[in-house]
Amino acid sequence: MYKGTSASAGIGIGKAVIVKEEKLVITRKAVSDTAAEIRRFKGALEKTIKDTERIAEDLAARVGEKEAEIMKGHMMLLSDPMLTGEIEGSIQNEGINSEIAVENVCSMYADMFASMGDELMQQRATDMRDLKTRLQKTLMGIQSVDISSLPKGSVIVAEDLTPSMTAGINPDNVTGIVTELGGRTSHSAILARALEIPAVVAVTAFLSEAKDGDDIVLDGSTGEIYLNPEPAVKEEYQHKKNQFMAEKKELEQYIGKPSVTKDGVKVEIVANIGKPEDVDKVLRYDGEGIGLFRTEFLFMDRTAAPTEEEQYEAYKQVAIAMKGKPVIIRTLDIGGDKEIPYLGLEKDENPFLGYRAIRFCLDRQEDIYKPQLRALLRASAYGNIRIMVPLVTCIEEYRQAKALVEELKAELDSKGIAYKRDIQVGIMVETAAASLIADLFAKEVDFFSIGTNDLTQYTMSVDRGNKKVSYLYSTFNPAVLRSIRHIIASGREAGIMVGMCGEAASDPMMIPLLLAFGLNEFSMSASAILKVRKMVTEYSLAELRSVADKAMTFATAAEVESYMKAFVEKVKF
Amino acid sequence: MYKGTSASAGIGIGKAVIVKEEKLVITRKAVSDTAAEIRRFKGALEKTIKDTERIAEDLAARVGEKEAEIMKGHMMLLSDPMLTGEIEGSIQNEGINSEIAVENVCSMYADMFASMGDELMQQRATDMRDLKTRLQKTLMGIQSVDISSLPKGSVIVAEDLTPSMTAGINPDNVTGIVTELGGRTSHSAILARALEIPAVVAVTAFLSEAKDGDDIVLDGSTGEIYLNPEPAVKEEYQHKKNQFMAEKKELEQYIGKPSVTKDGVKVEIVANIGKPEDVDKVLRYDGEGIGLFRTEFLFMDRTAAPTEEEQYEAYKQVAIAMKGKPVIIRTLDIGGDKEIPYLGLEKDENPFLGYRAIRFCLDRQEDIYKPQLRALLRASAYGNIRIMVPLVTCIEEYRQAKALVEELKAELDSKGIAYKRDIQVGIMVETAAASLIADLFAKEVDFFSIGTNDLTQYTMSVDRGNKKVSYLYSTFNPAVLRSIRHIIASGREAGIMVGMCGEAASDPMMIPLLLAFGLNEFSMSASAILKVRKMVTEYSLAELRSVADKAMTFATAAEVESYMKAFVEKVKF
Repeated sequence: MYKGTSASAGIGIGKAVIVKEEKLVITRKAVSDTAAEIRRFKGALEKTIKDTERIAEDLAARVGEKEAEIMKGHMMLLSDPMLTGEIEGSIQNEGINSEIAVENVCSMYADMFASMGDELMQQRATDMRDLKTRLQKTLMGIQSVDISSLPKGSVIVAEDLTPSMTAGINPDNVTGIVTELGGRTSHSAILARALEIPAVVAVTAFLSEAKDGDDIVLDGSTGEIYLNPEPAVKEEYQHKKNQFMAEKKELEQYIGKPSVTKDGVKVEIVANIGKPEDVDKVLRYDGEGIGLFRTEFLFMDRTAAPTEEEQYEAYKQVAIAMKGKPVIIRTLDIGGDKEIPYLGLEKDENPFLGYRAIRFCLDRQEDIYKPQLRALLRASAYGNIRIMVPLVTCIEEYRQAKALVEELKAELDSKGIAYKRDIQVGIMVETAAASLIADLFAKEVDFFSIGTNDLTQYTMSVDRGNKKVSYLYSTFNPAVLRSIRHIIASGREAGIMVGMCGEAASDPMMIPLLLAFGLNEFSMSASAILKVRKMVTEYSLAELRSVADKAMTFATAAEVESYMKAFVEKVKF
Repeated sequence: MYKGTSASAGIGIGKAVIVKEEKLVITRKAVSDTAAEIRRFKGALEKTIKDTERIAEDLAARVGEKEAEIMKGHMMLLSDPMLTGEIEGSIQNEGINSEIAVENVCSMYADMFASMGDELMQQRATDMRDLKTRLQKTLMGIQSVDISSLPKGSVIVAEDLTPSMTAGINPDNVTGIVTELGGRTSHSAILARALEIPAVVAVTAFLSEAKDGDDIVLDGSTGEIYLNPEPAVKEEYQHKKNQFMAEKKELEQYIGKPSVTKDGVKVEIVANIGKPEDVDKVLRYDGEGIGLFRTEFLFMDRTAAPTEEEQYEAYKQVAIAMKGKPVIIRTLDIGGDKEIPYLGLEKDENPFLGYRAIRFCLDRQEDIYKPQLRALLRASAYGNIRIMVPLVTCIEEYRQAKALVEELKAELDSKGIAYKRDIQVGIMVETAAASLIADLFAKEVDFFSIGTNDLTQYTMSVDRGNKKVSYLYSTFNPAVLRSIRHIIASGREAGIMVGMCGEAASDPMMIPLLLAFGLNEFSMSASAILKVRKMVTEYSLAELRSVADKAMTFATAAEVESYMKAFVEKVKF
């Protein structure tokens, strides 16, 4: 048995196809007619861009817009005048052939990206190396390995897959992917998940053992791989595969069904997203809305704040795609634990208790908060956008944010610009302070969304990223459960919607409690939606109320968890 | 008007006495009989140590043990064989006179301490320079300026006062101190406070203006100084001074009186201390016990953890001095925000949410926690010691600490070692989690002490040391007040004592609320005790209950504060 990093869930059973890229031999040649050589380079460049465009279009049609973005990123790199200018300059000035000029310039950029250390830059380095090879092959007239027409039941085994190769895979024929390199967030892994092909990456010393035609069994959820396994193992995994497929199929039946308990209580099951492209998946899994759209992505990995226009386009895109379903957009939730040089945020001694989120935004109204709120208002003309304010601790913070929204509404009115006049403005309830006075907040705000990750962290005074104390982090702690129950009761009593967008909202052991407490809306990653809907439909609230009453009698998280575990196992989740 | 740093409260009105130390001229001389020179040095050293001992004894008798410690620190430095050995070695090897050897060696140490940057080391540098000068004067037969016999009504004006000079002041004759250098925590400032002489330090460019005999008015509370003021100003300050003295006298009447409201509700007014020596002051101000004895001092500024024996001696000293009155000792409350190399604590990303206090202690039972608990138990044979566990968030933490105490009790029993058999073990309630389940804790623990500083910090998710967000830090926030009310109610219902050892316990605007909520014990710095006792005796609980009911209807800290301010002003505090 081999073990790697799980990159795409599911069981793959099939025959190994070893995919080896022939190593290109790039030789330096002196070139006298550099003008002709530059034309040759430009021709190859144009062909590569066209190929990439074709792959992107194909991906957009077969898989999704988000996945096509990866190849569009390649096109952007190829069209960058800095890069092509340097290659052409190198041909011109050094009098060398295109292949070696491409080698030198692209390698230099790839090495530079790789040396920057963070994951995003590592990914750019991989992309740059992929492009380099494709440009060189085009120049040399070498065909890439064609993996679009592999036999049915193939398990691709490779040192690494470039995004362009992964994009060419036909999921009808490929039942699994195993690579020696790569990581869970590499573009190839993202594509494998989008194509729903089980994949395990970062498997050490596998290529030297596997041969074409070997029997392979892999579990993309656990990262386990068997090479030429015993029949019993193969059988076991075939069984697992059938289960996986059956469950997938069963869950698909919940598409289009309402999220209603046995005794007729309706809740909303919605999704957390981080980018406009994530909406594809939400729609695929029949999300009833967006419960949390994080807007930080707009502000990360750039050198200046996004313009109001940029933000407007992103919010509008989601509002339109969700066709009138609720889209809760959280205003900027960022602080001194993130490095965003242009925001001028200094590292706080205790970043989680520091200058961040609404505290930062209210301090930076003109350059940061107003443009975001204005963009949200303008985009609200295109759908059911709701504004959510994070990290609120006292009423004044909400009132200030709300006053800004009103001020901007008046401004838009005076200019005749459209927006949703009854746009809701709510708060994320994630601090002990907000929970303790939830009844006071409920009188003023339009909705609550409970952020259980931070609420647990702040209630337990524990940084869950700190391994030495994370054992204290449990949403099942009676203190946290009481806090959640109080927030929900306060919101319900005031007649406002109460949602939850922390991880607890999709935790099978937590869902019975949340239903019993009266939670209206459960927000989670899109892939969990159907499973949670199934759970909801199998419970009756009357029954869960007595379960919750019992659970709330315990004094420790361990007792609550063990009680809920027993209950959930009894009802077979 | 000049402005400096307030170092000791009170109004000083009198005539300037400029105290200028003559600059010593130290000349290098070659010495052939180094043995004789070393004998000369040893003679001067012995005399200086004896002088220091006399000053220390005098201070202990006139002021207090704690203040005498400062001079004892000087004696320790003078007796350090490293220092004297180096001076003697320098005389011997370089063949130089004692004065220059003292100059070189002491200056080297002083510069080294000063370069270490922190305040404590700065203080040691000042102490070392003071010693150097005194040694040299003794060697040269120069008398120090004698400030013990200044005329009545003198205001000492100096560039800086050395601790030994300050210690020589006769407070009957000196009505104020003004210095150009120094800080609020310098030893001279500490001595000025202990001698109850109004003092302002760090006054820029004052010596060049003031002359002997000038009229001076200074306010040690505000840091204001007037040089030759108008008669009106002098009159105004004379009035302030009379008020200050009258208030002081009035408060002294509360010594020995019970802390009882008009309608007969008795509370305890006790003190927070940081070192055994602080007990002097607690007894002077008639504290009814110790509500919080911080034990961190035992672990700071050293290279290894204190032994059980050292801790035992410190705890025992306080227990005996308090003669059966309650002494609540908090177990080690330390974390990654403090640099204590021998504890091996790493700097956490969010120290306040990290590995600290009880979390650290339960992880380090053998080398840290058990020795401390054993020392506490052994010391409890000598008085009414109670053990307090800090930063508790869940029941298991208390149970583990309590189990350790029981284990150690059995161990002491088996060895026939005495301890207080019914020793109380309580918790500091300072996290949102502990507050939310205070009723569950109240069933198991022996007492509560509410730590309002941390409780406010954690409830509001705000690091009050962070200037950009400290505006959110308010114990008057309705969320924090509700939390406090709930903790008190839970404790009282279970019949256990509920105290408070945060700053709120001595806040005039908070005291009416705390009395109304039913707080049993108010713990504060010793100097606030009599003032708070006076307040308590002037209220009736019946009246305060309606005040508290009204205060709890507000939604913001600002409204609560302004309501309480109006109430307190009406009753004239």
